[in-house]
Amino acid sequence: MPKTKTPATLTSRLKLLRKRVRDAGHDAVLVINPVDTRYLTGFVGDDSWTLVPARGTKLYVLSDARFEAQIAREAPQVAAVMRKRGLVDELKSLRDRLKLTRLAVQKGSLTVARFEAIKKGLGARGVAAWDDGLITQRAIKDAHEVKLIARAGKIQQAAFRELCDFIQPGQTEAEVAAFLEYRMRCLGADGVSFPSIVAADANAALPHAIPGRTKLKKNGLVLIDWGAKYGGYCSDMTRVIFMGNGPSKKMKEVYRVVLEAQLAGIAACRPGTRLREVDAAARQVIVDAGYGDQFGHGLGHGIGLDIHEAPRLSHLADEHAELEPGHVVTVEPGVYLPGVGGVRIEDDVLITGRGHRVLTDLPKSLESTTI
Amino acid sequence: MPKTKTPATLTSRLKLLRKRVRDAGHDAVLVINPVDTRYLTGFVGDDSWTLVPARGTKLYVLSDARFEAQIAREAPQVAAVMRKRGLVDELKSLRDRLKLTRLAVQKGSLTVARFEAIKKGLGARGVAAWDDGLITQRAIKDAHEVKLIARAGKIQQAAFRELCDFIQPGQTEAEVAAFLEYRMRCLGADGVSFPSIVAADANAALPHAIPGRTKLKKNGLVLIDWGAKYGGYCSDMTRVIFMGNGPSKKMKEVYRVVLEAQLAGIAACRPGTRLREVDAAARQVIVDAGYGDQFGHGLGHGIGLDIHEAPRLSHLADEHAELEPGHVVTVEPGVYLPGVGGVRIEDDVLITGRGHRVLTDLPKSLESTTI
Repeated sequence: MPKTKTPATLTSRLKLLRKRVRDAGHDAVLVINPVDTRYLTGFVGDDSWTLVPARGTKLYVLSDARFEAQIAREAPQVAAVMRKRGLVDELKSLRDRLKLTRLAVQKGSLTVARFEAIKKGLGARGVAAWDDGLITQRAIKDAHEVKLIARAGKIQQAAFRELCDFIQPGQTEAEVAAFLEYRMRCLGADGVSFPSIVAADANAALPHAIPGRTKLKKNGLVLIDWGAKYGGYCSDMTRVIFMGNGPSKKMKEVYRVVLEAQLAGIAACRPGTRLREVDAAARQVIVDAGYGDQFGHGLGHGIGLDIHEAPRLSHLADEHAELEPGHVVTVEPGVYLPGVGGVRIEDDVLITGRGHRVLTDLPKSLESTTI
Repeated sequence: MPKTKTPATLTSRLKLLRKRVRDAGHDAVLVINPVDTRYLTGFVGDDSWTLVPARGTKLYVLSDARFEAQIAREAPQVAAVMRKRGLVDELKSLRDRLKLTRLAVQKGSLTVARFEAIKKGLGARGVAAWDDGLITQRAIKDAHEVKLIARAGKIQQAAFRELCDFIQPGQTEAEVAAFLEYRMRCLGADGVSFPSIVAADANAALPHAIPGRTKLKKNGLVLIDWGAKYGGYCSDMTRVIFMGNGPSKKMKEVYRVVLEAQLAGIAACRPGTRLREVDAAARQVIVDAGYGDQFGHGLGHGIGLDIHEAPRLSHLADEHAELEPGHVVTVEPGVYLPGVGGVRIEDDVLITGRGHRVLTDLPKSLESTTI
């Protein structure tokens, strides 16, 4: 049974969720996504499920002995149920004990196989797969969450500044990635928010390149997309470095186009603007410059406990979906020339009550990116 | 359309899968787990689906422009379909074009929400959630896969040896983790196979501790659980280092018990032994020493493209499931004393035709782990 009070932040998060559970006519929701468990309880583990009853303030985490001490430390307010049997068997016991007859399960995270197992164990009648709305809820960050993201951004920027002194032609992409990740850790990051992309010259034409043995050229280009995690929260940036004279005039022209597009995208960030319009604001600049077909991804995505969250800035976004205060998104247009190279420029942007605040501020003029 | 032949390894993997698809009466299977896509095609990306028809040799990857160049490079043998619309819409077109009437989808990876969307888009009648058997298939490693795991193990061991020269009382857990991960990268790892655990003294009682600001003590203990990834394959080890005189006689006694248990577990590794028995062989040693309640997790797990794969060495494993040649498992008993400390010792073990081969060989006698 809970021994300590739930922190105020978590209480307000739970309150919103419980209301949705009640409104949908459920008795409780079973949270199976570990990131949602962290968001609702503070417990940072996996292989555990959180049961949130619609009424009252109690909260149950179904876990196992590996996490017993960790739950007591990170989430002393929850009732931890240490399972000795399978998760489904323990869930059944708990459900019966709490007399829950209408249990909802997160349909965006639950696999079909798991759902079948739960229905088999608990009986299909009292269990429903449900859209819990946490994706939308988590997209709106509170002040503390913004602070953590901003701090992650500070760490990743400090590491990048060190990298600018370290980087040399002849180094491999993998060496550069290793250095950057090492320095982020030493500067206080929990770790990386995703495996860093360090892509030299033609490799930069692959938006999701994996750093390898390719060496940085004396007059070349290197695209770096990296991020730090701090207090569980992710930041995410991309910069391109021109080594010496750079690979060509063409790539410098591309750089100017992408930078102009990125600034247009950032300028469009304000509450009430449709997600599609933000994407379009940046995309138009690239289309006008003749590189429309070479920008084949969306403009950006939300960041938070996950590196990819709602909202998505994309021409495929819901037609009516809009930016809201508290959203934190990346703005990252790119132009990719197969076999030649690529440019992407990315910053993290908080949507405020009236407009936006850019959380990251490494210089990005063409001059400043030349080493 | 495919331009190059499928490599022989992939052909034999696909052959096994296609046979199961046919045997189950399906026309094709849609692979949505990105790790399975890598296993079947060589393409290392996400947000992409692979369609494997039951007959013929063709293979389709539904992806988007971000991955176009990467697919051409990593998996030139597949037919890449670059989507302009949602994945489900593109899937419908492809399904209609190929005249597939009975499409199976991986039920162990597909979420309930995705399944609903697919059924809505394609019509519920021609779509079935199906257990594709890839978990069992992937558990049996071929010679090349074993080589990659062994190489990952060599890298993580080389980094650990460097760490033994680096490590000092006063350093934080996070610094130690950062150094270890940096050195693995520099030594050729793709990256880490999971976020390293570096846990000093009482923190070592948390099996899944996160490295933080706790400092290593002059006469203390530090538990390190780390792994390298090489060619996509994971290795996974745990060692405990005693600093100076170590924290207490008690922890040294615990160390000897865990080591004896680990050796007993490894000795039990041979084809035909039940998974539960392997777990029991190690567990009995710990129970006999009076620490049974302090070993609250399974003995080990398979490793491969994922850090946790089949088979699981656990008392909860299927009663009849056995070790088979080609399985690669961790053997990692542990004893955790809350508030005091913990010991876990972990190596990677290949099951051979007649017995086993331990792939990792860092010394682990109590003497050798004292610095």
